[in-house]
Amino acid sequence: MPLRNQKNSFRYIAFEGIDGSGKSTQAKLFADYLENKGFCVFLTKEPGGSTDKIRDLLLNYRWSKRAELFLFLADRAENAREIKNKLDKGCIVVSDRCMYSTIAYQGFGEGLDIDFLEELNLFSTDGLKPDIVFCFDVDLETMNERVGKRDVIESKPRDFFYRVREGYRELAKRNDRFFLIDGKKKKEEVFGEVLRIWESL
Amino acid sequence: MPLRNQKNSFRYIAFEGIDGSGKSTQAKLFADYLENKGFCVFLTKEPGGSTDKIRDLLLNYRWSKRAELFLFLADRAENAREIKNKLDKGCIVVSDRCMYSTIAYQGFGEGLDIDFLEELNLFSTDGLKPDIVFCFDVDLETMNERVGKRDVIESKPRDFFYRVREGYRELAKRNDRFFLIDGKKKKEEVFGEVLRIWESL
Repeated sequence: MPLRNQKNSFRYIAFEGIDGSGKSTQAKLFADYLENKGFCVFLTKEPGGSTDKIRDLLLNYRWSKRAELFLFLADRAENAREIKNKLDKGCIVVSDRCMYSTIAYQGFGEGLDIDFLEELNLFSTDGLKPDIVFCFDVDLETMNERVGKRDVIESKPRDFFYRVREGYRELAKRNDRFFLIDGKKKKEEVFGEVLRIWESL
Repeated sequence: MPLRNQKNSFRYIAFEGIDGSGKSTQAKLFADYLENKGFCVFLTKEPGGSTDKIRDLLLNYRWSKRAELFLFLADRAENAREIKNKLDKGCIVVSDRCMYSTIAYQGFGEGLDIDFLEELNLFSTDGLKPDIVFCFDVDLETMNERVGKRDVIESKPRDFFYRVREGYRELAKRNDRFFLIDGKKKKEEVFGEVLRIWESL
């Protein structure tokens, strides 16, 4: 049986949120759901969707905030090429993180200029943006319980994550089809909310 | 005996040119010359001055042109931090390549927007620019004889290097204290020209 192609124009779906918000779990559930429906699905992630070489540098060493930004953008540029390739083949792309992580973490979190970051993001992907973003909101206590200190980025100070969380809430206000979902509930309930929104579109 | 500090304002000196133009040799000769005069000298290079991690990625893998650009910028951001630190200590910084390589290679060579690249360069270094650039001009035959195919970047096609060389010539016209020197002569003669210009400033 040939794979189904998605007919509406929403084919690049990103999952966002602070660490421990459940986005990776939800992205996987969503990709499985679509595959079971017979769609061609490409599940990817940032950083590291198309190469783990830059991801390894990002997660294992401390960088200046500008170097860190450019490493994320380099990774994103590589990833965008592969995403475009899959979209051209008619697949649905499900991504664990996307360009909005840069706005939330390096912009709201690290204080870099947000307009400039948006320009860099679009340059890095050659204009490609997600069609839909599901963003999971959890408080910092929940983040800490779920995450521990897994890597360098996640070991940044608490007020950094506070700003990142507020950043995501702000992004949900500013952008169309950027849905903020309570990520504290059970994963089945959260996924039910994702599907409810997806089916309403 | 304490190290001498350089009194004039020209303390960040970069050496530029296409591959095989002799810039690395000349940078080393110049650093040795200044050290022998008793100055504190920091000899560095791009990419890879402060970390070889990004340099290794750049030289050993093929990247999309945007990913390559961002990797160079990440490396430059790290390097700029160290250069500033050395300048603050009163050292003279001698660098084998600098931000102008990005304009020549990714701008003139790869066709990326030069104004945008200049903005990215200054962002990556937080505004730091070399005070003096010595740029060595050689034809592509000389480049090929001297270089062979050492790495991925140097194995790009011939017309790419033609555009890069023309880019450097253009940069020399556009920028103050950006000196184009015939790099085809013997290294002692070339170095004599470097010193003549240095002492005239």
